[in-house]
Amino acid sequence: MTERTTPDDITAAVLASFARSPDERLGTLMRALTTHLHAFVKEVGLTEEEWRAAIGVLTDTGHITTGTRQEWILWSDALGVSMLVDALANRDPAGRATESTVQGPFYVPGSPLRAYGDRLDERPAGEPLWVHGTVRSLDGRPLAGAELDVWQNGDNELYAVQDADAPENHLRGRFLTMDDGGYAFLTVRPTPYPIPYDGPVGHMLSATGRHPWRPAHIHVIVRAAGYRPVTTHVFDRESKHIDGDAVFAVKPSLLRDLTAHPASDPGRPAALSDHAGPWWSLASDFVLAPAPA
Amino acid sequence: MTERTTPDDITAAVLASFARSPDERLGTLMRALTTHLHAFVKEVGLTEEEWRAAIGVLTDTGHITTGTRQEWILWSDALGVSMLVDALANRDPAGRATESTVQGPFYVPGSPLRAYGDRLDERPAGEPLWVHGTVRSLDGRPLAGAELDVWQNGDNELYAVQDADAPENHLRGRFLTMDDGGYAFLTVRPTPYPIPYDGPVGHMLSATGRHPWRPAHIHVIVRAAGYRPVTTHVFDRESKHIDGDAVFAVKPSLLRDLTAHPASDPGRPAALSDHAGPWWSLASDFVLAPAPA
Repeated sequence: MTERTTPDDITAAVLASFARSPDERLGTLMRALTTHLHAFVKEVGLTEEEWRAAIGVLTDTGHITTGTRQEWILWSDALGVSMLVDALANRDPAGRATESTVQGPFYVPGSPLRAYGDRLDERPAGEPLWVHGTVRSLDGRPLAGAELDVWQNGDNELYAVQDADAPENHLRGRFLTMDDGGYAFLTVRPTPYPIPYDGPVGHMLSATGRHPWRPAHIHVIVRAAGYRPVTTHVFDRESKHIDGDAVFAVKPSLLRDLTAHPASDPGRPAALSDHAGPWWSLASDFVLAPAPA
Repeated sequence: MTERTTPDDITAAVLASFARSPDERLGTLMRALTTHLHAFVKEVGLTEEEWRAAIGVLTDTGHITTGTRQEWILWSDALGVSMLVDALANRDPAGRATESTVQGPFYVPGSPLRAYGDRLDERPAGEPLWVHGTVRSLDGRPLAGAELDVWQNGDNELYAVQDADAPENHLRGRFLTMDDGGYAFLTVRPTPYPIPYDGPVGHMLSATGRHPWRPAHIHVIVRAAGYRPVTTHVFDRESKHIDGDAVFAVKPSLLRDLTAHPASDPGRPAALSDHAGPWWSLASDFVLAPAPA
C-alpha cells in the first residue's frame, strides 16, 4: 500500500515549487505566505464549508471594489495590516519625529494651494475650528516652506470624494509654512464617521461584534525638501471611539486637545470675521526627520 | 514624550478587537488569521510598495472572477490551500479507503446517467480509452449501485464547460456499478492541460518560475448509500508533469497504468466496434469508508 499524503507533505511540495523563483524577493514572499497561510489553515482545522465561505467573501469583495470603493484596503485597514506596514516603514530610531499613521482610502492628490489662515471648507460643514502650529526639524529648527496637505470629513460624516453634492475641493487643501515654520487654517471640527459597512468588511465587523467607527481626526501629509515626509492624523483626544478606532490608527502621540472659545474671546482670528458665535482651536506641531541619504 | 506605538502593539489591538465575537468560531478564525497574517508581514518586512502591489493583485483577481472564471479557487489551488483543506477533511485513520484530491473548478452537477460500458465522449476527442474496475467497501465487499460521477478534458485540453463548441455533456457522465461492484466506460485518453494562466495566478506562476500544467487525469466522485463519498482523480502515471502538478493534487496512491492494446487484441471491448485501431485501457478500483455515524 502506498503511503498516505499528509498535510505537511502538501506544504512541503508548495514550498519546493517556489524554490527556483528568478525574482528572489518574490520567491521569499511566496514561501513565507505559503508557510503562514498553511499554518493558519492547519491551526484552525479549516473546514470545506468554511473554505467555500471564504471563497464567497473574496468573490464578493472583488465585485464590490470599484475605482472609488476600495474594499481590499478596507480589509487591510480593519485587520490592522495597513497600520502594521506603516509601522514597519516608519521606524524612527530617534523617536522624536511625528509618528505616521494610515493614509486611508480618501486621499486625493492635487488639493488646491491655500494661503496662510485661509479656510478649508467651501460650504457649511460644522463648528468652526482654527488649526495652527509649527513644522520643525528633529533639532528644533523651524522649517519654512514646508507643505501641509490636509483633508478631513465634515459633519455629514463624508469626505468630498464620497459626496457627489460637495464641491471637489471642499475640506481639502495644501498650506505652506511661513518663515518661522508656522502654519494656520480655518476649518470645521471633524466628527467621528463609520468606514463603509455595507460590504464584506462591514459584515465581518458586525458578525464579530466590532463597530465601523473612526474617532474624529484631520489627515495631514507634511512634506519639506530634504526631510522625510510623514503621513499622519491629528486626533481629537476627546472624540468618541478614540479607544476603539475601527482601523487601529490611533497613536497616543497623535492626540490633541481642542480648546473651546466663547464668542467674546478677544483672540478670535480675523478669518472668523463672518462668524459671530463660539469656536474651537487646536495647536499641533510637526517634527520631520531628515530624508535618508 | 509619549511612548512610540510598535508593530506588536498593533497586533495586540487587532486581536483584542476580536475578543468579544458573538460567533465564537468566527472569533477564533479571525484571531488566528490576524496572528498569521501579521506574522507574515513582520517576517518579510512587507514594504509599502509591496503592500500596494498586493492590493493591486487582489483588485485584479476580483475583477477577472466571473460566474465561469473563479480566480480565487485558482489561487487556493496554486498555493496548495485546496489540497490542504481536502487533506484535513479527509483524514482516513484506516488508511485503506481511496484517497481524495481536489474537485477543481470544472465540475458541473447533473451529468447524464450512462449505461455500463457506454461512451463518455460525444464527439472525437482523442485516443480511445477503456476504463474499468470495481467499487468496494473497506472490508472488500463489492458495492452494487454505487455511482461514479466522471468528468475529464479531451485532446483540445478543455473541459466541456470551458468550450463553447462542445456538446454540454461531452466527456462527463454518471455510471452505476453492477451487482459485482463493477463499472466500465469508454472514453478518450486525457491529456495534460494548463490551468487558466492569463490572469493574476498565471502572472504569479511565471514570475516565480512555475508552470501552469496539470498531468493527465480523470475526475471521479464515487458515491454509495451508507458510505462516505470520495472526490478524487485517476492519474496517468506516465503523464508529463506528473511530478509537478500546478495544483499539487497528485498522490502516489492515485497513479494508474494505462495499457496499450494493438488493433489485433482479441480483448477489444464491444463498445469499440466502430474503431478499428489500437486503444488504451486503465483499471482502477475504488474503496469507500463507511459514512460517519
